Amino acid sequence: MTTVGILGGGQLARMLALSGAPLGLRFLVMDTVADACAGQFAPMIVGDWRDERALSEFASKIDVATFDFENVPAESAQWLAERVPVFPSPRALAMAQDRLAEKTLFRELGIPVPPFSAIDSREGLDAALDAIGTPCILKTRRLGYDGKGQFRLKTRSDADAAWDALGGQAQTVGLILEGFVAFEKEVSVVAVRGRDGEFRAWPLTQNWHVDGVLSASLAPAPVSAELEASAVAHARALADALDYVGVFALELFCDNGVLLANELAPRVHNSGHWTIEGSETSQFQNHLRAVLGLPLGATRMVGEACMLNWIGTMPDASAVLAEPGGHWHDYGKEARTGRKVGHATLRADTEAELAQTLARVGKSLDRMAQVQPVIDALKR
Amino acid sequence: MTTVGILGGGQLARMLALSGAPLGLRFLVMDTVADACAGQFAPMIVGDWRDERALSEFASKIDVATFDFENVPAESAQWLAERVPVFPSPRALAMAQDRLAEKTLFRELGIPVPPFSAIDSREGLDAALDAIGTPCILKTRRLGYDGKGQFRLKTRSDADAAWDALGGQAQTVGLILEGFVAFEKEVSVVAVRGRDGEFRAWPLTQNWHVDGVLSASLAPAPVSAELEASAVAHARALADALDYVGVFALELFCDNGVLLANELAPRVHNSGHWTIEGSETSQFQNHLRAVLGLPLGATRMVGEACMLNWIGTMPDASAVLAEPGGHWHDYGKEARTGRKVGHATLRADTEAELAQTLARVGKSLDRMAQVQPVIDALKR
Repeated sequence: MTTVGILGGGQLARMLALSGAPLGLRFLVMDTVADACAGQFAPMIVGDWRDERALSEFASKIDVATFDFENVPAESAQWLAERVPVFPSPRALAMAQDRLAEKTLFRELGIPVPPFSAIDSREGLDAALDAIGTPCILKTRRLGYDGKGQFRLKTRSDADAAWDALGGQAQTVGLILEGFVAFEKEVSVVAVRGRDGEFRAWPLTQNWHVDGVLSASLAPAPVSAELEASAVAHARALADALDYVGVFALELFCDNGVLLANELAPRVHNSGHWTIEGSETSQFQNHLRAVLGLPLGATRMVGEACMLNWIGTMPDASAVLAEPGGHWHDYGKEARTGRKVGHATLRADTEAELAQTLARVGKSLDRMAQVQPVIDALKR
Repeated sequence: MTTVGILGGGQLARMLALSGAPLGLRFLVMDTVADACAGQFAPMIVGDWRDERALSEFASKIDVATFDFENVPAESAQWLAERVPVFPSPRALAMAQDRLAEKTLFRELGIPVPPFSAIDSREGLDAALDAIGTPCILKTRRLGYDGKGQFRLKTRSDADAAWDALGGQAQTVGLILEGFVAFEKEVSVVAVRGRDGEFRAWPLTQNWHVDGVLSASLAPAPVSAELEASAVAHARALADALDYVGVFALELFCDNGVLLANELAPRVHNSGHWTIEGSETSQFQNHLRAVLGLPLGATRMVGEACMLNWIGTMPDASAVLAEPGGHWHDYGKEARTGRKVGHATLRADTEAELAQTLARVGKSLDRMAQVQPVIDALKR
């Protein structure tokens, strides 16, 4: 019996455990809070990542470790990797945790990125503003996610406010200034790379964010085959450069047929949740297959799929459950403002049918604002 | 948070818990053995069904109860039903536990059955043999499954041996003599009925048994639309008569286009395991939706599906995982002769593709005998 350890016990760990059970795997989750939702379906160790005793107990009970959370301290990942196999590697994790290292690698690999500059002082910010111009975004190098740790500068006069908000972190997690990209759409490549280097990508996904948090995903993304091939080639170059093992997502901006890489998420990703029902093999099962050195599963679509995120509270399930292609995912979390508490995936045989389903669900749940952009994309 | 209690902690309970997690449900399993495989993914109470203290603790922690095992004592189900809602009802369970009551109901509803007769003595056996003739099968009325508690009589001279084998149970669980049916194929209707009486059936499944245990299932079964409609109508009549709530399977024999009902399994069923990947909604999730009064999910196929049962030991997973439509289900059980330890589902877009997949998997695992009958049925 193989036991997979997962650092982080949120919904990603929960869905990893649920999709890995049919492989005969057992799971052990480690999280800092006792009510982490993965604990409802897997044994859990409650402890801080930096607590060597807890980490040691965790390591002693597992055969292989992975993450549901990219901000696990690199030292903890390294400590663990000296005791059990860890995938993705601490090196890949460390790179993806640091926006500067990540964007530098993108550039080295010939993957187009917006202009960026490391910032370590107020003067450095001014110099970078001269070079990059406005609008632009000041971000923490590390520990940011879902729009947290970011400050948008519309004009140079916002520099003081930006520094007031984030300057204190210049010497701790570090800062980076990035040129703001006007984009027509956001897409992501969700892909998996095996221990043997085999690489498979799911069809490109188009994403919509609200206040920096994913709101909806549509697969396959309505883009040209050339654009999709280019995005997938970038993802593959990155994965090969990092000798990456497991599932990851590469988020990109797309404007007038031109791609610009935004960031790499070194884990199963919210924009790949539709793969549970919309693809032959889910991102969760393929992540585990990769980590364990098993053959990777097919990433082909099964119909057309749209994922709707539920933030803060769960809507009434009935409208989705009553749809012929409606699938519900309640993470078993307490409601809390801004928290990802669940999602729905709607699946249909055709784009027209999917658009109709979205319209019914949007109306029924009084969430037309969430579904309308997807309907518009399907009708274009 | 709704907690579903499941009496019985085998692979059916395990798959119920895994498929119910996305509905935001919690589970509590009760089984007589501590290593019941559902306990790997759900909390468990270990205790005998007849132990009122254990049953009382179980009842106090759940909102609704269901079964993974039809041989839960009717008294235990009744005791529980006086404390929490229980679906299917103890009445439906009791009927399905008793081959005589079941066959009598089939006959009352106009569902064709082989000739049968209750047997309560050696003389009664002789009288029934006069009426039914040979070949025939002497079976226990209760507690039989997977071919257990059965004795096949080829000629009248087998009567003594049959009585030696099972006569001792005539006054305990009871006996029934059934005419032996020569059949061309075995099929099952896996269907679900909601609390509100809504009824949905999955496409008809063809099944192959070896030594009384399911070996392979194919869906949709290659039969005429008329035959399928007739089988589904029988299942619906039964479910309505019993005010049945949840998933059940009706097993039928089919010979020259004529159907004869064999038995009703009042639970999710091995011949419906293919629905996890081969249908829009799995039998497991629809069972839970029915039990909880939620809208039922679509039972439409997603491609063509074949399920192969793994008995005794798990084969090597790689051959199945490497197939584009290969899905693996390891129940996390110890290997043991005759035990159901897992299954694989192969899914394909066309019958021809499915036949090719089966041939590759059968060859790779050295199990051509298991897959050949399915390939033959697909090619016919």
